[in-house]
Amino acid sequence: MTTVVALGGNALIRKGDRGTAAEQSARLREAAGSLAPLLGEPRLVITHGNGPQVGNELIRQERAADEVPPLPLYLAVAQTQAEIGAMIVTELGRSAGRPVACLLTHVVVADDDPAFDRPSKPIGPFYSSEEAAALERDRGWTLVEEQGRGFRRAVPSPTPLEVVELDQIRALLDAGAIPVACGGGGIPVVRDGDRIRGVDAVIDKDRASAVLAKALGAERLVILTDVAAVKRGFRTSDEEVIAELTADEAEALLPDLAEGSMRPKVEAAITIARAGGEALITALESLEAALAGSAGTRIRG
Amino acid sequence: MTTVVALGGNALIRKGDRGTAAEQSARLREAAGSLAPLLGEPRLVITHGNGPQVGNELIRQERAADEVPPLPLYLAVAQTQAEIGAMIVTELGRSAGRPVACLLTHVVVADDDPAFDRPSKPIGPFYSSEEAAALERDRGWTLVEEQGRGFRRAVPSPTPLEVVELDQIRALLDAGAIPVACGGGGIPVVRDGDRIRGVDAVIDKDRASAVLAKALGAERLVILTDVAAVKRGFRTSDEEVIAELTADEAEALLPDLAEGSMRPKVEAAITIARAGGEALITALESLEAALAGSAGTRIRG
Repeated sequence: MTTVVALGGNALIRKGDRGTAAEQSARLREAAGSLAPLLGEPRLVITHGNGPQVGNELIRQERAADEVPPLPLYLAVAQTQAEIGAMIVTELGRSAGRPVACLLTHVVVADDDPAFDRPSKPIGPFYSSEEAAALERDRGWTLVEEQGRGFRRAVPSPTPLEVVELDQIRALLDAGAIPVACGGGGIPVVRDGDRIRGVDAVIDKDRASAVLAKALGAERLVILTDVAAVKRGFRTSDEEVIAELTADEAEALLPDLAEGSMRPKVEAAITIARAGGEALITALESLEAALAGSAGTRIRG
Repeated sequence: MTTVVALGGNALIRKGDRGTAAEQSARLREAAGSLAPLLGEPRLVITHGNGPQVGNELIRQERAADEVPPLPLYLAVAQTQAEIGAMIVTELGRSAGRPVACLLTHVVVADDDPAFDRPSKPIGPFYSSEEAAALERDRGWTLVEEQGRGFRRAVPSPTPLEVVELDQIRALLDAGAIPVACGGGGIPVVRDGDRIRGVDAVIDKDRASAVLAKALGAERLVILTDVAAVKRGFRTSDEEVIAELTADEAEALLPDLAEGSMRPKVEAAITIARAGGEALITALESLEAALAGSAGTRIRG
């Protein structure tokens, strides 16, 4: 059996953390205990988010822009794959008892994906309205206002279609390693004749993880987040934990789920369920119970 | 036959370049033509330097330090593996006609390496003497003065001993891919019981490439730099190109070579020659002639 596990942001940075490397490494060491039942699986791929880390990197790029050229967003995504990947290799490698190896991963999106017409994902530092106007003019960015906090760059979040390094991830699995792949949803690229070309976008990491899991023929996709299970009527008085869903039931639930939060996770789960596998959405702390069937939300068939 | 090729900094950034991603990608596209004879080799590993890129990243880290925590140096090295690796995958992948895949690579050094007692490698931004004193006090850094330009952090450059991801690099080779590995000399780590731990140091990329080549049993190490060959009496009136050297002859030449420049390249070459392989030191532009035996410096036996 092949399992893909997608680590949520809180495996590395939690509320109130400054997000230093020492803190993130310590969080991962804590996470290693909860991940132990998966780290023993013979075929496991680890994916992860990069929200806070890419935000920090974009702030660095901007603050030094007068001295050193800022990198395009897709290379900042690449940087976070390495930053987080190096910490995962170090901290989980010890617990796994076998090699954990991070492969830089590109994910193909369509250059005519409608997401490119309406950049929706806010990212990086906040700007004043004057700065925002200058950035729209000089760099062609789209800036969106966030109530009371200023303006931020908004970037497209296109649909992941294909993992460029699929065969290499498989080769690492076959060689007995635990690949870390598709970090931050992957480095977004479009196909341009016989080559790939980086594009300034971000890909949802759960959707990319589902594309990877499906292409690998993985029987299981585990999505770790900050809640123990999917809920009906989330944050209402009728809130109700959902233990199991079919793909059709999950599909019907989608409109009720928070966009950019639980919705892409359930969409990712549906992808795997429809491909004949099983998806499990739960929190790191509930993972052991969820694997035993007594926690989390299981989506299949 | 397995070949390891170490790309010099000028494959990506040349004198007068600003070092934008667009410029670096264009330099790599130019380089692809010269590299064509190697890209056709059935077993090829690409390594590369990261001097200007890690310098830029450290400037970014410092300039945003009030807002977002700076990463330790070893993670900045990791970031440059991804930044440069992503560009190599994109630009050389096209010419290679088969997958080029970048593996995050850690390289083990000894925690009692004498280099840790005398940080010698200047890196990152320049500081005033007041800033330098504060950094020595607050962060325990070693600062060195560079004539007329101010103070810079100096970091240790320990001897590379072992490539952590060796088996995974081999798995990628066996699967027909061209691995990009050991970028910037690798992410420096020490062994700490059953785990590895990142350390603030930089590893010479040619020495790390030799350790990798030897461990892979590579028959050939190609070191690309900005001169077409090793010279006796470099920059004197007796300057003389050296076409061939035995390992013993190369050893005898070491004291005459520039430390931190040609010397580590010839040291790396000696490592491979003594292991029964052949090393070739040349410029990108002379590569084809050097492979045909009419340019460059060849070191063997």
